[in-house]
Amino acid sequence: MGRWQPDASGRLAQAAMELYAEQGFEATTVADIAERAGLTERTFFRYFADKREVLFGGSHLLQDTLIAGLRGTDPSAPPIEQVVTAVEAADQFFTDPGYSRQRQAIIAGHPDLRERELIKLASLGAAFADALRSRGVKEPTASLTAEAGVAVFKVAFERWIDETNTRGFADLVHDSFAELKSVTTAAG
Amino acid sequence: MGRWQPDASGRLAQAAMELYAEQGFEATTVADIAERAGLTERTFFRYFADKREVLFGGSHLLQDTLIAGLRGTDPSAPPIEQVVTAVEAADQFFTDPGYSRQRQAIIAGHPDLRERELIKLASLGAAFADALRSRGVKEPTASLTAEAGVAVFKVAFERWIDETNTRGFADLVHDSFAELKSVTTAAG
Repeated sequence: MGRWQPDASGRLAQAAMELYAEQGFEATTVADIAERAGLTERTFFRYFADKREVLFGGSHLLQDTLIAGLRGTDPSAPPIEQVVTAVEAADQFFTDPGYSRQRQAIIAGHPDLRERELIKLASLGAAFADALRSRGVKEPTASLTAEAGVAVFKVAFERWIDETNTRGFADLVHDSFAELKSVTTAAG
Repeated sequence: MGRWQPDASGRLAQAAMELYAEQGFEATTVADIAERAGLTERTFFRYFADKREVLFGGSHLLQDTLIAGLRGTDPSAPPIEQVVTAVEAADQFFTDPGYSRQRQAIIAGHPDLRERELIKLASLGAAFADALRSRGVKEPTASLTAEAGVAVFKVAFERWIDETNTRGFADLVHDSFAELKSVTTAAG
């Protein structure tokens, strides 16, 4: 047995990112990624199903954290407040915009990866709606609130990884929600 | 040359729907679909890239209609009003909930088809945002308005295909937007 690796999945993700940027996503094999990380292919497959998933390893954790965040809010608060509070809590994941920007550039360049990203976002929306329904929020309120939460998340994230941005993620979530509110109430 | 077919693409789509429901999506080939429609495989490929696309043949037309609808609204109206007016115009496509319900059940059962559906919705959101920006709407307003429009569309559509629904699509769009407004303004 090799020596214990404290953060094998993090090293694999970093190695994958580097290789996708250097030689492209298609040209990179799992063997390349494992080699760059100084690990075996077997270790790779202990953490990730395929070379797409290595870029989305954190998505499950992110979703679980967001849903736990929602469940930690006051259930008597307006549903949109529960969801926005949960989205703000993703702040703890988003501390290095440079890394996220690089990752997003790789995803944007590959239809396969864009599809996976859309699926993760749809899954987050469904999870928000489920969590709200389990707290007694009725339809269509639960679904609309969940979709609004995902919209705020997406827009805040895009602003956060913008080259010119200097603000924190939670701050941008707060702002994007205020903007959504102003957008929806602008109609006569 | 065979006799001219007035609605070959519609017949292919109908045949595909029947076969997907009868024998499953995976088990159905393009040859099966063409045979059921009384057409050749060559005709199939004149209209559709693959057997997934046959279920999404109308999506392009739907998106073009929605964007044309948006461009037909008063550019000085609030952006959300432009988008919701455009979504209401999809009413002309949604006249047979039974057909849409059957199609949606097939999509729901196949990850491949669900992915394609998510891509079409993301594409609609991007097209709304583009159309708004080209009318001078700034970011993040354009993106948030576009996402809000897609959320209203999705929720209205789900309600419209519900077994118990008796209301028209445009009516449900109007309602879903009112609900989204009430959802976002519920926060303190």
